[in-house]
Amino acid sequence: MSIFEYKKYRIYYTIDGANKTDAIPVIILNGIMMSTVSWDAFIPAFTEHHPVIRYDMLDQGQSTKMNTTYTQELQVEILHHLLMYLKIKEVNIVGISYGASVALQYAAKYPKTVQHLVVANAVAKTSPWLKAIGDGWNEVAKSRNGLAYYNITIPYIYSPQFYTKEIAWMEQRKEMLIPLFSNPSFLDAMIRLTVSAETHNTIDVLDKITAHTLILSGDMDCLTPVYEQEILHQRIADSKLVVLPQCGHASMYEQPDLFTSIVLGFINHKDKPSIV
Amino acid sequence: MSIFEYKKYRIYYTIDGANKTDAIPVIILNGIMMSTVSWDAFIPAFTEHHPVIRYDMLDQGQSTKMNTTYTQELQVEILHHLLMYLKIKEVNIVGISYGASVALQYAAKYPKTVQHLVVANAVAKTSPWLKAIGDGWNEVAKSRNGLAYYNITIPYIYSPQFYTKEIAWMEQRKEMLIPLFSNPSFLDAMIRLTVSAETHNTIDVLDKITAHTLILSGDMDCLTPVYEQEILHQRIADSKLVVLPQCGHASMYEQPDLFTSIVLGFINHKDKPSIV
Amino acid sequence: MSIFEYKKYRIYYTIDGANKTDAIPVIILNGIMMSTVSWDAFIPAFTEHHPVIRYDMLDQGQSTKMNTTYTQELQVEILHHLLMYLKIKEVNIVGISYGASVALQYAAKYPKTVQHLVVANAVAKTSPWLKAIGDGWNEVAKSRNGLAYYNITIPYIYSPQFYTKEIAWMEQRKEMLIPLFSNPSFLDAMIRLTVSAETHNTIDVLDKITAHTLILSGDMDCLTPVYEQEILHQRIADSKLVVLPQCGHASMYEQPDLFTSIVLGFINHKDKPSIV
Amino acid sequence: MSIFEYKKYRIYYTIDGANKTDAIPVIILNGIMMSTVSWDAFIPAFTEHHPVIRYDMLDQGQSTKMNTTYTQELQVEILHHLLMYLKIKEVNIVGISYGASVALQYAAKYPKTVQHLVVANAVAKTSPWLKAIGDGWNEVAKSRNGLAYYNITIPYIYSPQFYTKEIAWMEQRKEMLIPLFSNPSFLDAMIRLTVSAETHNTIDVLDKITAHTLILSGDMDCLTPVYEQEILHQRIADSKLVVLPQCGHASMYEQPDLFTSIVLGFINHKDKPSIV
Repeated sequence: MSIFEYKKYRIYYTIDGANKTDAIPVIILNGIMMSTVSWDAFIPAFTEHHPVIRYDMLDQGQSTKMNTTYTQELQVEILHHLLMYLKIKEVNIVGISYGASVALQYAAKYPKTVQHLVVANAVAKTSPWLKAIGDGWNEVAKSRNGLAYYNITIPYIYSPQFYTKEIAWMEQRKEMLIPLFSNPSFLDAMIRLTVSAETHNTIDVLDKITAHTLILSGDMDCLTPVYEQEILHQRIADSKLVVLPQCGHASMYEQPDLFTSIVLGFINHKDKPSIV
Repeated sequence: MSIFEYKKYRIYYTIDGANKTDAIPVIILNGIMMSTVSWDAFIPAFTEHHPVIRYDMLDQGQSTKMNTTYTQELQVEILHHLLMYLKIKEVNIVGISYGASVALQYAAKYPKTVQHLVVANAVAKTSPWLKAIGDGWNEVAKSRNGLAYYNITIPYIYSPQFYTKEIAWMEQRKEMLIPLFSNPSFLDAMIRLTVSAETHNTIDVLDKITAHTLILSGDMDCLTPVYEQEILHQRIADSKLVVLPQCGHASMYEQPDLFTSIVLGFINHKDKPSIV
Repeated sequence: MSIFEYKKYRIYYTIDGANKTDAIPVIILNGIMMSTVSWDAFIPAFTEHHPVIRYDMLDQGQSTKMNTTYTQELQVEILHHLLMYLKIKEVNIVGISYGASVALQYAAKYPKTVQHLVVANAVAKTSPWLKAIGDGWNEVAKSRNGLAYYNITIPYIYSPQFYTKEIAWMEQRKEMLIPLFSNPSFLDAMIRLTVSAETHNTIDVLDKITAHTLILSGDMDCLTPVYEQEILHQRIADSKLVVLPQCGHASMYEQPDLFTSIVLGFINHKDKPSIV
Repeated sequence: MSIFEYKKYRIYYTIDGANKTDAIPVIILNGIMMSTVSWDAFIPAFTEHHPVIRYDMLDQGQSTKMNTTYTQELQVEILHHLLMYLKIKEVNIVGISYGASVALQYAAKYPKTVQHLVVANAVAKTSPWLKAIGDGWNEVAKSRNGLAYYNITIPYIYSPQFYTKEIAWMEQRKEMLIPLFSNPSFLDAMIRLTVSAETHNTIDVLDKITAHTLILSGDMDCLTPVYEQEILHQRIADSKLVVLPQCGHASMYEQPDLFTSIVLGFINHKDKPSIV
């Protein structure tokens, strides 16, 4: 367990595969409800060729719980200083959902640092619609009703097909999550994280991103639908778009294998066939 | 204002275009939050060629508020007796969402009565996923928090594109709806209606439907996605499927013109070109 | 049988439902291989409320066979003079494929004349790709090989699903069409028609179209794919887009019923619910 | 240059990356018009971790030109004997289009040999529609008109978007291909290859495939549309489906980078996150 301290913030992070010193590291940026542990099952594959850094953002996992509102810009600055602290000059970023928003902002602000950028289930900008969804989450979070919070968030994160097919796993997950979703400290952190994403808007800076970029999308993702990824694809110069059929917003959970193989295939792909 | 009484239930209904006596009437089945007044703007077009019957189902609008749970089968029986009371032997049914579920059940149980059946944003069966969505609605309904109830229901009913483009209209609607959504009587009715739809399952009886059937779908409908309509299309013998691009679950609100012209074009279409 | 003469051209046309004098007439613009008789099965439905004009364009059916190249602009002028000759000041246009190109050009040039415009399987502009497809058709037409011409044109016009399901009908059609497709006069007309469409480009004039416009699209149309219709929808002010699932380029043949009901529903739709 | 002789057939093949002896080799199965040289630009990336075998099937490139008709079963047997001759007991197969059909048949007949199977732009079965497309190709091939053969094949192989955007490259390719497409020997080989694919039908044996299978699809592929890949995905037990947006039938040419990274990512992916 490692802690990076920056100003008054304590950031929990882990490094796996640290012996892969000749490869550019991968850093993973969590979705809003996630933390470093959410990626445990992915680490064996991810560390095959790269050191892998995971960290909890502000208000996630074991990092500092805030007590004021902030924006994702602060998460971007934390990421920037964490990478400097780790003496990482070049990095591959993999971000999903909330983490993808931070990744996009970071890659536009510090373009030279990012070799490969993978954003899954991302948006260029938080739309009024997405803000309204967040408002709903936060209203319910304030009620401290864990079952309600579960029911108004989790089902929308999965495709109806996956949820229906994996109902036993979902029910198990529900039991596991309800205590957490009833915890006032967790809920208040969720409220702040949600508010911090409201002002996310990279529309006018996407053209600054120079990283080789992969945009991963699920065709049943109702929170960040495919058309949002098409906007990213149109505006990020060196970008590719891939659509996973029958996959919802939590692409890493619904298609862990495919997510992993596509992400790693993209990051490890060097001798690009430019002319055929 | 007319009231039909059946057993202990009082059903509010209206008839417009009653002078179109030579045409088979159209009866409209509301979505879950709707009532007869929701269709006011559609009546001039709908009554051009047909008498149009609207009614509030149990727990909707001005009809009986229930105090026990029930299933949509009861709504089907009410519809059956309402049509008998009105001496209607043949009818064109237009149902959306909740109303489409009732319409499908009715058309499978009383197939000879239905000439044309239009179901918009429908499902053959309430999936575990959709039940979970309803559970979330009901948990929040119990909290009596109108703003929360608004935020966790209404945005999902519209496509993000429509919501974002029509944000002024949406904000206006929000102000209008929040008092209603804070009303315990309305919320308790919503809870009962939601529960009544949980057992909806027509999978094995869709082959009994003989009506000319039109299935209307929105490709941004995240509550009842297009693949659900494809199931209906595969199983209802004489059915057509139409997809409205960039349209969410509330197809009649997002595309009132197109909804109306397609529905009426379908109902009024007689000399069908069978061979070309 | 009626003939309209304009300059050196003789245009064959028919009028059905001429007694519906209080309604704005519908004029039908054929696809490239079609002629007035292609629509026979649709006439009972189309004439229920409107007079319906059909005509063969230059190089189609019984109208003048040309002996020089020309562009669709000439077809537009013929249409303009035909309508003036018939003293029609306001019209509803239904055009498919080639006919939709002519319809778009006409509606942009004479916007006030067009009340409703329906374009099915249309493009705003003939792309280099579509020109290459036409080049292939014409190379084969020159070989006078009717079987080859059939095989390289007709299958692409239907969705694989329809072609496979209706294989008996397709085989019958093949036998019927091969003699025609071996006829040098027909093939030379097809070559000229194909060439006349190469310069079709309404991209910069679509904003002049004021008609209520319906854009009909098939999601399996590989000649004029859905994204081409989206361009039309974005640029024509008062336009609606409808997608027919599992439908190819010949939407009127694959879905004659649905095509008819949607087109007539649109044209007959007057009391539009503007606010709901 | 290596030649494998089997019965009366001479099969040209190449091996790159032969020093990667600890990895399971990759064998590439060409599309119908392709040959070993078509993959030159992909070899640096493909050989990073694996030996890579390319070969010309019967009637392709430098392998035996046949003089009778045959079916793809013969190509499967050639592949089987080539692998035995090379003493390869386990292999990763990457097949596109025609090569994917052969790959599917092989993987169903010799399931234990195939570790990973990647099929791009594939069909489970040659439909009557696809047979009709082939009939058209062959009718035109018989005319020895290289320009015609180019125009009725190549444009359909690319998405309209790619063809239009890369028009300069396409024109260059056209000049390069027309002499080849005018060569009677090449055209006769194409006719035989096309006929050999007509009886392709793995519908009832797909359940015998045990390989980790990746199905790659382009959403603008009009020759082997996405719904054909969905059939494969439903019937191959351990299969994943990925859709490349705005990509046609020649996915490896339209998206060489993405094709390569996804294919290699899939083949190299070992520590699969089974539970998350």
